[in-house]
Amino acid sequence: MKHFMQQAITAAKAAAKRGEVPVGAVLVDALTGTVLAAEGNRVEELRDPLAHAEMLVIQAALKQRGDKYLEDCDLYVTLEPCPLCASAISLARLRRVYFGAYDPKSGGTEHGPRIFEHDSCHHKPEVYGGIDESHCGALLTKFFSKKRHATEKDK
Amino acid sequence: MKHFMQQAITAAKAAAKRGEVPVGAVLVDALTGTVLAAEGNRVEELRDPLAHAEMLVIQAALKQRGDKYLEDCDLYVTLEPCPLCASAISLARLRRVYFGAYDPKSGGTEHGPRIFEHDSCHHKPEVYGGIDESHCGALLTKFFSKKRHATEKDK
Repeated sequence: MKHFMQQAITAAKAAAKRGEVPVGAVLVDALTGTVLAAEGNRVEELRDPLAHAEMLVIQAALKQRGDKYLEDCDLYVTLEPCPLCASAISLARLRRVYFGAYDPKSGGTEHGPRIFEHDSCHHKPEVYGGIDESHCGALLTKFFSKKRHATEKDK
Repeated sequence: MKHFMQQAITAAKAAAKRGEVPVGAVLVDALTGTVLAAEGNRVEELRDPLAHAEMLVIQAALKQRGDKYLEDCDLYVTLEPCPLCASAISLARLRRVYFGAYDPKSGGTEHGPRIFEHDSCHHKPEVYGGIDESHCGALLTKFFSKKRHATEKDK
């Protein structure tokens, strides 16, 4: 588990280098332990507000498998999924979600709309939050602190 | 408005002919009245549980515009958006959503997680539900009734 979260952190760091909010995700075939996809945020690069790390790995794995569901797959992501990604996780029927930092501002599983807690959510994955939390959170804190400093300098 | 919903219904009917749950969506540049994209569900065809009509028109319009947001755009869709699509609508900053039938089972704007009603939802579009409701709903009722009969015949 630690190993896959480390890969997600590596993807998040690569995203930061591209000027993206540093969130990384890894999708794993839980039966074989194979990594199906690893991605960081690409919202800025693709000019696509839906190009979150989780969406990118889910879409890549769906294409790769040619199957409508990813039932035996687990997601490792450095940040609590937002409502978009949580909904995608449910629709693609992922088995488990391991996430790093909690996201009180925009999270959608433990905060806000709590996507998996409604009867209308037809597939609820197992969710484990706070994995390598301080490490995952520090990436975001560092990124936004740098951004703030840059903005202040521009003033 | 009536005209755009009619186009969404046409897209939903085309989806039904392809064996898809009949939901159709149209994305309109509200400033010029231009249709940017019209699509029906393609979940079965693409083997992609995220290929809802709303997602397809939003993604098509984002690509077409090369912009990260669709702030001056309105969405017409035959069914209340699910949590995935409602989240995409918010992230892409659509101006308005006009939807047809209400969806107590899987809807995400007036039911279940009510995506737009949380502080963590950073953009809330104007939402108008029940537009041409009986017509939009009848498409779904007919589709599922046919499907049930086909399944019963197979037994």
